[in-house]
Amino acid sequence: MNYPNGIKKTFKTSTSNRGMNLEQDINETNLYYRNNDIAVIYKKPTPITINKVDYKSRKDAVIKEAHFIIPSTTDYNGVYEGKYIDFEAKETKKNYFPLANIHKHQLEHLKKIKQCGGIGFIIVKFTSTKDTYLLEIDKLMAFLNNNKRKSIPKEYFINEGYLIKQGYNPYLDYLKIVDIIKEREL
Amino acid sequence: MNYPNGIKKTFKTSTSNRGMNLEQDINETNLYYRNNDIAVIYKKPTPITINKVDYKSRKDAVIKEAHFIIPSTTDYNGVYEGKYIDFEAKETKKNYFPLANIHKHQLEHLKKIKQCGGIGFIIVKFTSTKDTYLLEIDKLMAFLNNNKRKSIPKEYFINEGYLIKQGYNPYLDYLKIVDIIKEREL
Repeated sequence: MNYPNGIKKTFKTSTSNRGMNLEQDINETNLYYRNNDIAVIYKKPTPITINKVDYKSRKDAVIKEAHFIIPSTTDYNGVYEGKYIDFEAKETKKNYFPLANIHKHQLEHLKKIKQCGGIGFIIVKFTSTKDTYLLEIDKLMAFLNNNKRKSIPKEYFINEGYLIKQGYNPYLDYLKIVDIIKEREL
Repeated sequence: MNYPNGIKKTFKTSTSNRGMNLEQDINETNLYYRNNDIAVIYKKPTPITINKVDYKSRKDAVIKEAHFIIPSTTDYNGVYEGKYIDFEAKETKKNYFPLANIHKHQLEHLKKIKQCGGIGFIIVKFTSTKDTYLLEIDKLMAFLNNNKRKSIPKEYFINEGYLIKQGYNPYLDYLKIVDIIKEREL
């Protein structure tokens, strides 16, 4: 579509970027869960340390120097039917999941979540084949405790995790898998 | 204590700043909960938007311009005995709590938490008298729905909330109050 003075504008529907990026897909799914009073799950802000702030005015502070810091927890947490949900989401281009993608203290965090009665897991998307899996922290630790490998083969996700089905709305309905986990725990 | 070339050093125990600052008191209490496998509750990172980043090297990125944004959720959340816990913590020098201290969407957030089966509340410290109260989201909304006032008098916290007792370790054992809330819900 051509606009006056040659500006081209593209119209995007909210679903146009689907399947492109795991973070976007999860954020969109979480928005659906919130808007439909199903669950309240958010991505946490990026952890940083702030070194320098310009206080032009009380309202208009500008951060002039800050650094990214290694997160001590995971990216996502929230509540579903009273239960605490906590997870990390990662993409991989390979047909295995490199363990360097997840920090040691994030694993420790997920183990603690499980100990305190919460539901902790990772969501991994294999971008070459576009399939996404949920793997519980227990299964992740079982692999780590029994292997010296620096990556988890996709087969492990297929056999020990759950494939998250893609739908229209929500796009990536991972709480369906949480339902299975919750029922098993009863 | 005097050091060579006149440097004075003060030795702080981890409890030396207690009661000075609500955020510190809660962070210290949460650390106690985590270290003793009682609960996993963290303060979320400050939400910002990043405008400019200097990528000197892959590891050494420096944020050169960023802005604080109004948080859409609360400061603290986590898990206690499987239950999702969510709260905002505020100090006031007055003998009332000014409602300007809490954003409208934070109230909406806490209401949604309650709807999804989580436990949502605010913790308010009256710094002149050094007493700290926990007030559930229901009681907070009841006040807002029945009053046109721009602040909540301290009496409301005394009558409808719970005084959090201060102890040695943890310093501010607010999960004792959560125990009462959980038992009432059974």
